[in-house]
Amino acid sequence: MPKRPIGVFDSGIGGLTVLKELLARLPGESFVYFGDTARVPYGTKSAETVLRFSRENVRLLLDRGVKMVVVACNTASAEALPQIEGEFPVPIIGVIEPGVRAAVQATRSGVIGVIGTAGTIRSEAYQRGIRALRPEAKVIPKPCPLFVPLAEEGWVDHPVTREVAREYLSVYQDSGIDALVLGCTHYPLLKGVIGEVMGEGVRLVDSAVETALAVERVLQANGIRGGGGDRFHLILSDTSPAFEETAARFLGRPVSGVELVSV
Amino acid sequence: MPKRPIGVFDSGIGGLTVLKELLARLPGESFVYFGDTARVPYGTKSAETVLRFSRENVRLLLDRGVKMVVVACNTASAEALPQIEGEFPVPIIGVIEPGVRAAVQATRSGVIGVIGTAGTIRSEAYQRGIRALRPEAKVIPKPCPLFVPLAEEGWVDHPVTREVAREYLSVYQDSGIDALVLGCTHYPLLKGVIGEVMGEGVRLVDSAVETALAVERVLQANGIRGGGGDRFHLILSDTSPAFEETAARFLGRPVSGVELVSV
Repeated sequence: MPKRPIGVFDSGIGGLTVLKELLARLPGESFVYFGDTARVPYGTKSAETVLRFSRENVRLLLDRGVKMVVVACNTASAEALPQIEGEFPVPIIGVIEPGVRAAVQATRSGVIGVIGTAGTIRSEAYQRGIRALRPEAKVIPKPCPLFVPLAEEGWVDHPVTREVAREYLSVYQDSGIDALVLGCTHYPLLKGVIGEVMGEGVRLVDSAVETALAVERVLQANGIRGGGGDRFHLILSDTSPAFEETAARFLGRPVSGVELVSV
Repeated sequence: MPKRPIGVFDSGIGGLTVLKELLARLPGESFVYFGDTARVPYGTKSAETVLRFSRENVRLLLDRGVKMVVVACNTASAEALPQIEGEFPVPIIGVIEPGVRAAVQATRSGVIGVIGTAGTIRSEAYQRGIRALRPEAKVIPKPCPLFVPLAEEGWVDHPVTREVAREYLSVYQDSGIDALVLGCTHYPLLKGVIGEVMGEGVRLVDSAVETALAVERVLQANGIRGGGGDRFHLILSDTSPAFEETAARFLGRPVSGVELVSV
């Protein structure tokens, strides 16, 4: 069991920001990453559809013999994780709870912003999670649907992205927030622009680091910490011409042999 | 056979711009519209995946007893239609060929712009089609991936959309074009902004009207023109809270009883 890989899935490539932290934090482990690029994005779809896709993705990873599953997608963590975490014979963790913990640690004012896809915000998963840890906290959520296509278009430092960020994030003007949760794995790509618009007084919370720590805790608690791994295998449901290049950039190491599956 | 409905599919809601013209042009016909909202968008996905999804969509419509199929999606028309048109026992037509005809009629300078999704532009379907009818024409293609999410966000008359349009359409400055094909069924929603950026000397070609004429010709040529229909039934693969409202706005009549299917 310990020698088995850890499964990671996302609707597309955004979850590679989480895989990067997992590789850095857990050098002895192997990983199987599945990006559902044929059906991306999840963030604009209904909770029922996200739940169905998430179940299929967990099954795909279980067929590869994984010892646990990381839902490296905020929308799926928000809308599917509560249902699926008891349905399968391995531990399943998402990115919301670690993000919540990081946000609560980061704030001093107790006013926390949460940005994400329409699905993630609608689910209220961050809002509930933060209030559970800090009942007096004030949470200001804001869906930012254009951030994913802007990041995928590669406009990570573009005047249009700055303008979109200014418009979306104007809800935080004079709100007193000092921590903003990047509640979508794509958003760290836009950290520069988001940080610039929010100003220095606001800490940007990226849950990838906290998620890697949570995975480590789960492995230890279950006695399934591996050794001698440090490999990863990437699976996609659609070819993506730029994927190997993007993945190499995200992961800081060369990527080849991406496998294609039908969903 | 004539009394059977006409099937129409799109990756999402954009194809309703085509259904609207079909309803206006063919008052005696009934329609079944399928929007693959669970897997939208198609325009950023590979040709193989678009082909697979398109085959599934045609089968779904055939199961509903349709007498012909209209591919009301530029990406699927460009990447799948050439393969699927001979595979099924009913006539199948797309939106590219009618758009090509309209573009060739609209131009005087012989320089034609074509905008669409990454998939549509990559397929070169418009470029080939226009050159087949007018070998001396000069075609300038430009993928505009952000137009679909901007239209879906409802930013149809927004400074950001104007800025994105200015950036994408700057390739047409001093190019001599006098016709621009809106090669995506979402783009008519942005007609105002696109027209403003292009200026009065450029005709915007929306293939929906031409497609309705082409459908009429196919029905007549096959002796399957219906009578007494004038109804439509809408099927989606994912719930969309705003869909009935959007559909009613597109179609100019109230919409209810949208059916949900799994894909």
